[in-house]
Amino acid sequence: MTRQELIASIRRKKSFLCVGLDTDLKKVPQHLLDSEDAIFNFNKAIIDATIPYAVAYKPNLAFYESAGIKGLIQLKKTMDYLHSLDDKVFTIADAKRGDIGNTSQQYAKAFLDPQGDFGFDSITVAPYMGEDSVTPFTVYEGKWVILLALTSNKGAFDFQFIEDKESSKHLFEKVLETSRKWGNDDNMMYVVGATKADMLETIRGIVPDAFLLVPGVGAQGGSLSEVCKYGINKDCGLLVNSSRGIIYASNGEDFAQRAAEEAHKLQQQMAAELEKIAF
Amino acid sequence: MTRQELIASIRRKKSFLCVGLDTDLKKVPQHLLDSEDAIFNFNKAIIDATIPYAVAYKPNLAFYESAGIKGLIQLKKTMDYLHSLDDKVFTIADAKRGDIGNTSQQYAKAFLDPQGDFGFDSITVAPYMGEDSVTPFTVYEGKWVILLALTSNKGAFDFQFIEDKESSKHLFEKVLETSRKWGNDDNMMYVVGATKADMLETIRGIVPDAFLLVPGVGAQGGSLSEVCKYGINKDCGLLVNSSRGIIYASNGEDFAQRAAEEAHKLQQQMAAELEKIAF
Repeated sequence: MTRQELIASIRRKKSFLCVGLDTDLKKVPQHLLDSEDAIFNFNKAIIDATIPYAVAYKPNLAFYESAGIKGLIQLKKTMDYLHSLDDKVFTIADAKRGDIGNTSQQYAKAFLDPQGDFGFDSITVAPYMGEDSVTPFTVYEGKWVILLALTSNKGAFDFQFIEDKESSKHLFEKVLETSRKWGNDDNMMYVVGATKADMLETIRGIVPDAFLLVPGVGAQGGSLSEVCKYGINKDCGLLVNSSRGIIYASNGEDFAQRAAEEAHKLQQQMAAELEKIAF
Repeated sequence: MTRQELIASIRRKKSFLCVGLDTDLKKVPQHLLDSEDAIFNFNKAIIDATIPYAVAYKPNLAFYESAGIKGLIQLKKTMDYLHSLDDKVFTIADAKRGDIGNTSQQYAKAFLDPQGDFGFDSITVAPYMGEDSVTPFTVYEGKWVILLALTSNKGAFDFQFIEDKESSKHLFEKVLETSRKWGNDDNMMYVVGATKADMLETIRGIVPDAFLLVPGVGAQGGSLSEVCKYGINKDCGLLVNSSRGIIYASNGEDFAQRAAEEAHKLQQQMAAELEKIAF
């Protein structure tokens, strides 16, 4: 999906909501568990219920991998289903990959190649190994690399705020600055945690036009209005993710309906934020 | 596999060789390609040929994932085969994972859980997201996290050498120092590229007793004797990986025999290095 298509989708749905599919069999409603396709059936119900309010879906690879090869078959079914819909959404492999050049090429093929099992639009990548670990993800037309900049977790404070002696910039700022040479606003986004919303002003100073994938609203405690205050730009420029707050809103028979309600609530807040910038 | 068992294995085989299974169907000998199990058959032949000379095997996840779900079935067969052997080797999931705590838990389950599809002894993890992204990998008894410190690729210079204003330490030194609080020499190793062998003296100053996984000997240009000069310790403390130099020594019918020869050559050099320290 191109940047123009993504922006058009945000405009049409008045939403920049990404639904995180962190599907965990321990949290899936009991009545789904007697099927071999429990994970897929759960995802399909969540997608059907939330797609009027969401422009993006983000399966978290760890939750599929932890169920072994069977889990990855459920992921493939989920992706096949998303690809089959007329309502095209932006898909994110939340995989946090990254390795030396010839290995990152293989990861790019695994997740982004339209001929592959998954054919995601984008993949999250860790920046620690530098340029040749990132650029192989930018070669597929209309596909995106989403680079970790400032993450939503407590461990973000261990290294991401280290101050570079030479430039007095923090590590996450160096990642933003340096990676601008490796891609552009049509093929590179950044992960910025909603729990660090106060840093968004600094971040927008470095990447004014880039799309940001913002996790951490909801279960992790981040605020949507804070994120928008400092992070929104003329093209919206945000994909705000909620996982647990939507998909586990209920673990009863009404789980899909409750997920729809939570997604709708967020979408309404997002529509109000978009109105503020006359988007 | 515990540290004691690993050291005993190194002593017995007079080797600290890790064979990297970066198995790529484009490089596998033609005559294997007519089987659905080409990747596994290749791996099995390589394992059978090299196991007298190797203490560890390191499948590179990207090469299996790029073949889709079929590729992961080949990985499972490879792991099942390794587990079935009397000659127990140390297994490394070269997966470069790492995410927020509850997600890293799922990755740990995917790769390390003895009840899972793979049951690796260890997994490589990127440090960018800090403590809660790393510690979930240390909870399985006798299993290891192998944290990226200084990688072998060109991109290592982008961020790993950033100098911390406060301590004047490089980022990779901060990773080594800080992570000492998250684990110990019985459950944490570090990746240090052979192409940065001159930094091993500094690294040994911070982690004198830790095992180091050293890629980059062979195709990437690193030197075994340089690595040993600065990196070996009283327990050996090294696992030196070679992938392409061994597994693609020939792409003809003699590929396994040629792989054995290359592994044997490295093992002989390693035996000589171990003799120097009277191991």
